[in-house]
Amino acid sequence: MNNFEFVNPTKIIFGKDQLQKLQSELPENAKVLMLYGGGSIKKNGIYDRVMEALEGVSVTEFGGIPANPEYDILKEALAVIKDKDINFLLAVGGGSVIDGTKYLSSAALYEGEDPWDILAKGIRTEKGMPFGTVLTLPATGSEMNSGAVITRKSMKVKLPMGGPGLFPKFSFLDPTVVASIPQRQLANGLADAFTHVLEQYMTYPIGALIQDRFAEGVFQSIIEVAPRIMKDPSNYEAAANFMWSCTLALNGLIQKGVPTDWVIHMIGHELTALHGIDHARTLAIIAESHYLTSFETKKEKLAQYAERVWGITEGGLEEKAKAGIQKTKEFYESLGIDTKLSAYTNDYQGTAEEIEKRFNDRGIKGAGERGLVTPESVRKIVEMAY
Amino acid sequence: MNNFEFVNPTKIIFGKDQLQKLQSELPENAKVLMLYGGGSIKKNGIYDRVMEALEGVSVTEFGGIPANPEYDILKEALAVIKDKDINFLLAVGGGSVIDGTKYLSSAALYEGEDPWDILAKGIRTEKGMPFGTVLTLPATGSEMNSGAVITRKSMKVKLPMGGPGLFPKFSFLDPTVVASIPQRQLANGLADAFTHVLEQYMTYPIGALIQDRFAEGVFQSIIEVAPRIMKDPSNYEAAANFMWSCTLALNGLIQKGVPTDWVIHMIGHELTALHGIDHARTLAIIAESHYLTSFETKKEKLAQYAERVWGITEGGLEEKAKAGIQKTKEFYESLGIDTKLSAYTNDYQGTAEEIEKRFNDRGIKGAGERGLVTPESVRKIVEMAY
Repeated sequence: MNNFEFVNPTKIIFGKDQLQKLQSELPENAKVLMLYGGGSIKKNGIYDRVMEALEGVSVTEFGGIPANPEYDILKEALAVIKDKDINFLLAVGGGSVIDGTKYLSSAALYEGEDPWDILAKGIRTEKGMPFGTVLTLPATGSEMNSGAVITRKSMKVKLPMGGPGLFPKFSFLDPTVVASIPQRQLANGLADAFTHVLEQYMTYPIGALIQDRFAEGVFQSIIEVAPRIMKDPSNYEAAANFMWSCTLALNGLIQKGVPTDWVIHMIGHELTALHGIDHARTLAIIAESHYLTSFETKKEKLAQYAERVWGITEGGLEEKAKAGIQKTKEFYESLGIDTKLSAYTNDYQGTAEEIEKRFNDRGIKGAGERGLVTPESVRKIVEMAY
Repeated sequence: MNNFEFVNPTKIIFGKDQLQKLQSELPENAKVLMLYGGGSIKKNGIYDRVMEALEGVSVTEFGGIPANPEYDILKEALAVIKDKDINFLLAVGGGSVIDGTKYLSSAALYEGEDPWDILAKGIRTEKGMPFGTVLTLPATGSEMNSGAVITRKSMKVKLPMGGPGLFPKFSFLDPTVVASIPQRQLANGLADAFTHVLEQYMTYPIGALIQDRFAEGVFQSIIEVAPRIMKDPSNYEAAANFMWSCTLALNGLIQKGVPTDWVIHMIGHELTALHGIDHARTLAIIAESHYLTSFETKKEKLAQYAERVWGITEGGLEEKAKAGIQKTKEFYESLGIDTKLSAYTNDYQGTAEEIEKRFNDRGIKGAGERGLVTPESVRKIVEMAY
């Protein structure tokens, strides 16, 4: 097991009929900026419930944060924060709204000249404006971690940021919100969380028994709950398991003390930046090609995964490992998610070369758990995924 | 899944050669009281390493906290805290030293007349004096939770306390300390952590998929690591898994959203208070009788445990459930731990009646996940365990 540090101070308030506790979680004299997305919270009743819970609190609203939270829109929100003397942010939404709020948390207290540098120069956020979340879409785990990914369309880039100052103070996780999530988003959430676990698990064996078991437990829970939630998102028990699994998939715990990969995400972010494909679907496009390409260095864990998660007991190590890749592809497909780039765009030619170039431009020599995935192999992975 | 709140702000610093970070984790102008146990840390080098890491810091020492941290001794430490104007506590030890430090953390800031009330009246600690830990004995999980159990020998009582103010600020977990732990303590640690998971898992099914998987993952890790660590405690990989499993067994995560039991601990504490038996061994004495007595209400989870953790696939539900109880008993025995009270004392007659009386005196009508374990059934459980 590798050395590690782990801390996660976010308070989770999980379950139905908990929102009445919202006000008691706010600091005294909070001047709140409430952030949300395209307005679905006004249709499904969440907006009204949050507003009711905030009665008597000073609240300014900022709606319209899009999927892949957009830098230029967040700039407007930042102006509101300064204008209105806001001292607390409340994200009501999914990963995009929460990630956007994390950028604002950091930018609001940023002392440099241009807060774009937080992303462009990868500046770690030690202290941010305090914020909380009301999660409306289980997927990214952003409600209990300190990372975010921000898009700037005009530059066709999607960049990560993070730091210990970016944990939410609290997150409300109410599984009843799942009932009104469209099928496409449910599938995305399941695929996203599943791939988060893959990135933290599918590396090489390091004898970290409990991290492996926990990661396998998240896989198994997502696999078990996926058909139930796709069939009936108003099934509370299924929704609760879906929601808590997504959070635990990326709250930092399972990656501590073990190598992690994240190549699928690195490439996936580029596919979203270039073609506007849903984040989760970009992951499903890349996973198979990546695992086939890095088969030799990943086969032990692939085989363990096939055996423990998918119950594949027949065959030798390599056969099991290959079956593990196949099962992963089938899992995405079972959610109605295509796993080839050409299913999403006709304009895919040249994508592999462009992403290779971007990796080279950023000076990435080798990515993945062993640093072996060169820009050239990235090109091959993307080509295989056409 | 039940509603729940979860927060755990303790920072874990895990691995070898990490202690040099100790000073940077202390608040500025810390006046530290360093607490430890019987002095084994002076033999195994941990004392010297901690002292070296604290060079230049104002440190007062208080050694001699015994297993089952004793109220009368802690009273002396409390006087030192007041005398020396201490503002930070550092526990260097196992669960007993850490639990004792938690009592001191609470008592140091207690505003009532007599800090004994914290235990006698079960007063929850909202704010304690800040403290950190350097763990020397994996077992109780106290290094990453906010609970403690304190003994007062003169009254033959052992009482729990806790509250959100009692999370350690940080805990150093260095698996190399395991090498110098005697066999008896290793066995105790493994049995203690294992039983912690039992208490949070062996109830009734509630459809909490991921909590079950995580709990099963801790069981599996402990079972896998137990023979390796008993054979060679200097095996770093085994020690690391042992240590991290013990922490995750009781850091609050796996019990969220599910029913919990704790009857084994309630009775076990009385056996320690009455007969001075090691905490972990009291748990091993009670487990089988408790599960046989509550077989009807626990058989579904017992069977699931037998199947998933012990790989028992033959037989119907009741047969599997019984095999689960048998496997549990055999696990304790594999550690060299006797599972009958008469193996520890000749003076066991009357114990069952005395414990029944104590449960009645405390007004406990029914314990366990359904509140069905009456003082009378407690008596029967203890009798069965003679």
